[in-house]
Amino acid sequence: MKILIVGGVAGGASVAARLRRMDEQAEIILFERGEYISYANCGLPYYIGGTISDRDNLFIQTVDGFSKRFKIDIRVLQEVICINRENKSITIQNLITNKEYTESYDKLILSTGSEPVKPPIKGIDSRKIFTLRNVPDTDKIKNFLITHKPQKAVVIGGGFIGLEMVENLHDAGLEVQLVEKADQVMAPIDFSMAAIVHQQLRQKGVELYLKEGVTSFLEEENGVRIVLESGRELISDMVIFSIGVRPDIKIVKDAGLELGTTGGIKVNSYMQTSDNNIYALGDAVEVLNPIITKQMLIPLAGPANKQARIVADNILEDNKYIYPGTIGTSIAKVFDLTVAATGLSSKVLNRECIEHISSFTHGSSHAGYYPGASQLSVKVNFSPLTGKLLGAQVVGKEGADKRIELFSEVIKKGGTIYDLMDLEHAYAPPYSSAKDPVNMAGFVADNILKGKMKIAQWRDIEKISLAKTTLLDVRTSEECSEGYIKGAMNIPLDELRSRIKEIPKEKDVLIYCAVGLRGYIASRILAQYGFSNVLNLSGGYITYATAIAECSL
Amino acid sequence: MKILIVGGVAGGASVAARLRRMDEQAEIILFERGEYISYANCGLPYYIGGTISDRDNLFIQTVDGFSKRFKIDIRVLQEVICINRENKSITIQNLITNKEYTESYDKLILSTGSEPVKPPIKGIDSRKIFTLRNVPDTDKIKNFLITHKPQKAVVIGGGFIGLEMVENLHDAGLEVQLVEKADQVMAPIDFSMAAIVHQQLRQKGVELYLKEGVTSFLEEENGVRIVLESGRELISDMVIFSIGVRPDIKIVKDAGLELGTTGGIKVNSYMQTSDNNIYALGDAVEVLNPIITKQMLIPLAGPANKQARIVADNILEDNKYIYPGTIGTSIAKVFDLTVAATGLSSKVLNRECIEHISSFTHGSSHAGYYPGASQLSVKVNFSPLTGKLLGAQVVGKEGADKRIELFSEVIKKGGTIYDLMDLEHAYAPPYSSAKDPVNMAGFVADNILKGKMKIAQWRDIEKISLAKTTLLDVRTSEECSEGYIKGAMNIPLDELRSRIKEIPKEKDVLIYCAVGLRGYIASRILAQYGFSNVLNLSGGYITYATAIAECSL
Repeated sequence: MKILIVGGVAGGASVAARLRRMDEQAEIILFERGEYISYANCGLPYYIGGTISDRDNLFIQTVDGFSKRFKIDIRVLQEVICINRENKSITIQNLITNKEYTESYDKLILSTGSEPVKPPIKGIDSRKIFTLRNVPDTDKIKNFLITHKPQKAVVIGGGFIGLEMVENLHDAGLEVQLVEKADQVMAPIDFSMAAIVHQQLRQKGVELYLKEGVTSFLEEENGVRIVLESGRELISDMVIFSIGVRPDIKIVKDAGLELGTTGGIKVNSYMQTSDNNIYALGDAVEVLNPIITKQMLIPLAGPANKQARIVADNILEDNKYIYPGTIGTSIAKVFDLTVAATGLSSKVLNRECIEHISSFTHGSSHAGYYPGASQLSVKVNFSPLTGKLLGAQVVGKEGADKRIELFSEVIKKGGTIYDLMDLEHAYAPPYSSAKDPVNMAGFVADNILKGKMKIAQWRDIEKISLAKTTLLDVRTSEECSEGYIKGAMNIPLDELRSRIKEIPKEKDVLIYCAVGLRGYIASRILAQYGFSNVLNLSGGYITYATAIAECSL
Repeated sequence: MKILIVGGVAGGASVAARLRRMDEQAEIILFERGEYISYANCGLPYYIGGTISDRDNLFIQTVDGFSKRFKIDIRVLQEVICINRENKSITIQNLITNKEYTESYDKLILSTGSEPVKPPIKGIDSRKIFTLRNVPDTDKIKNFLITHKPQKAVVIGGGFIGLEMVENLHDAGLEVQLVEKADQVMAPIDFSMAAIVHQQLRQKGVELYLKEGVTSFLEEENGVRIVLESGRELISDMVIFSIGVRPDIKIVKDAGLELGTTGGIKVNSYMQTSDNNIYALGDAVEVLNPIITKQMLIPLAGPANKQARIVADNILEDNKYIYPGTIGTSIAKVFDLTVAATGLSSKVLNRECIEHISSFTHGSSHAGYYPGASQLSVKVNFSPLTGKLLGAQVVGKEGADKRIELFSEVIKKGGTIYDLMDLEHAYAPPYSSAKDPVNMAGFVADNILKGKMKIAQWRDIEKISLAKTTLLDVRTSEECSEGYIKGAMNIPLDELRSRIKEIPKEKDVLIYCAVGLRGYIASRILAQYGFSNVLNLSGGYITYATAIAECSL
């Protein structure tokens, strides 16, 4: 069997290796437009920032090493420019000699990846404006840092790569400004969680320009002038343009392979395109999101690697394996924070008209009495009818990665918030608490679904009328002195029973504490003392204050 | 309703708080023999060692704070000495006044915990020999450290508490020796994984005496003489005796409540004892291990806390909730290592005659090219027929907690090694690799079950006859120079195809590399070149060398 692979980074290299391990006789040729294969794509920003100090570390495998080990004909600097489906061949342009030639296939695998979105903004082609996709892009940026010693950088786009570049340019000693079109960075998480990230960015001295698009760039002698939609102008020594990626599918389109509505290559559950002899994987394909049973673009390295194994095995074993799709579990380091998400955000759930309840909890990365514990903020989205877990977001300094993966596994298996309660975490004081934040998220959601606690959301606060609702702060007066919600009365939880008569019985009561736990206890007391409509603010003052501070900026 | 609770630490305090939140009117009295309630049991060793510097941090709740917040009648220094089931009352001895009195109940909750096993070894009552269960024990040890300034300590028993005490006494500046009756520390993991822990202990200067019991203690002027079964004698300034715990069930026995075969209180799935009006939870009860559907003693804080919620809700809501049991997910910090286990070890599986395959993998805590990555050693046990995951063990410097919890969740849900392959972890270079060690454990197990790779175990090596089997080392010659298995021939993987004729075709081939990955690739090549019986050493040279080194000590 003769198998051709287009693209030699994550998906392409993985599928080649698996094919060879399974079939020593197959003829395997891998075409890569660039000079390198199997490099550490996700490590590129960290090489720019200096965390990864040795450029050689970016190369997981060299062309020589890989072709030797796996007996694969690797052809770098050769661009596949055309798929000729009728005669099962592709046309390749050798980028060194510029000569074209064809190669026939039994099976063709497309791992063409994605490319940075680069709209035709005036001035965008300036040599001081960079995108980051591959090693040459990385070298360009790194060289610019070394030779031009820029003092200031503007990053356009607050997604994964944008934020990683913000941190790494900051680590490299630059003053960094971030421009983002939405009202928040990190699209996979919701506004209230992104607000924590905004705080962190500002603490590190990063200037944030949210709800700001770019109108034009103007290269000047000393840098780039960036004109924003608001009319504001920024001046910077360099710009990183990273507003997103889109599938790199020119040859796919030309070949008439079916595309999905998202613009990605359409594949069936075997990762096979509309042409039986052509498989595709990675950033270029759209994949099933099983929560909403819709196809989505989810350009992540983890799914690409898992798809690679399935593609190889399906080619050699005649479509025996099904790719179950992905729920988009993702993570990013943003300075001292880890920001992680899985499943669907409230934004997406609302867009898809999926009814859900959101619950915020703030736990501790490990037992509070053991040194080094830090706050972990958790948001879960779940179905009010079945308790099915639909999405989760975790932000914190430590242990966010661990918790998001547990949420991910529960969602992946179609599990509920009740599964979160039972989750058996590994407890010793350096690692967790006897009740882990993941359990706590489940307990709280269970209380909500069983009607043991009614909750209000931080956005509800501005809607309440103090004439109808008592806003009750059950924190200590000491805590209140550091900030409280306007109009609140303060009765510390431990005085609530003895001072209960101070609370008007005919009004609704909206309670809050710092994180929601004391508020919950207070809400249980009031509800049992005959107050008819008692609400507890989900996530407490922390969630409210963090989100509101960002709203008012 | 009048509810009495016996025991005010983890389970007892938790159940009291939940009862009150759910029912403001119930009369709740909590009896605690000691002076403190709701203290950080698992933190005690770390206070002794100084990691937790402030004793106050051990107290999560004071008696005053807790009783105020939850309106609970807390009676410390009052020991429940008798349960009078016929008239639904208990007899309590006030340990201050020594007076006895009774208290009636509608429902009684037993959270009596466990006590250190202390066999009648000669001399065991020396004041220089300590056990560690509670705050007074802790104070005694801490005071001994301060006033006697001991230089040397012997810890008897290499379980969780024993190992935590080894580390903490070492941190406190003592020279520590560890005596353990079995051939390994940490019973929940298997020998080959414990071998990594043994190495770590020795590296830290801890002397290990395995397969050694204690015959007698002899208090001397300068310390304690510890006579071991081998005849060896150790001299030490102090001894920590921690060979295990057993349910504290004197009053339970006297009351004629049913006990299980393990010696723990027998409860049904509602956590109800053989008396409908008495519930029990925590270390004192035996609970279902759903993997083998057998009752076991699993004295861990996580399960106790989860049981507490269920007990409270079942009392108030008439047995609506079922405790699903526990698979014993556990973890310990041992100096720089984290040692974690879930499900069943090979030892237990063999004892239960459950057929299983064990597979070892050594991954990286996060992407190798990102600084700070360290080795994570993983062992998984799974069914050869169904692929059902039966147990997992993880040892490493970082990220062991995260991985064990994913294994735990898969086992808990009755999942298979195929579920490990699909597991959607959160990947960015600081947190993981595109294929996480958990995925890798699944991929490798899948290769084994699909017959793509046959494996040998480290214990098989000593059984092979070099006349019948070629032992093939496919590492580089550089790696071999640092140690290899006697009798092995060396052909580096990348030279295997060209030197294949050097390997006798009529013999079996047992391949190994460092961790098993190159060995796997080599085994695929040989199998496809017509070698009939090709085995790859699971876990490679690392697993073999670590385990063998310990065997020969």
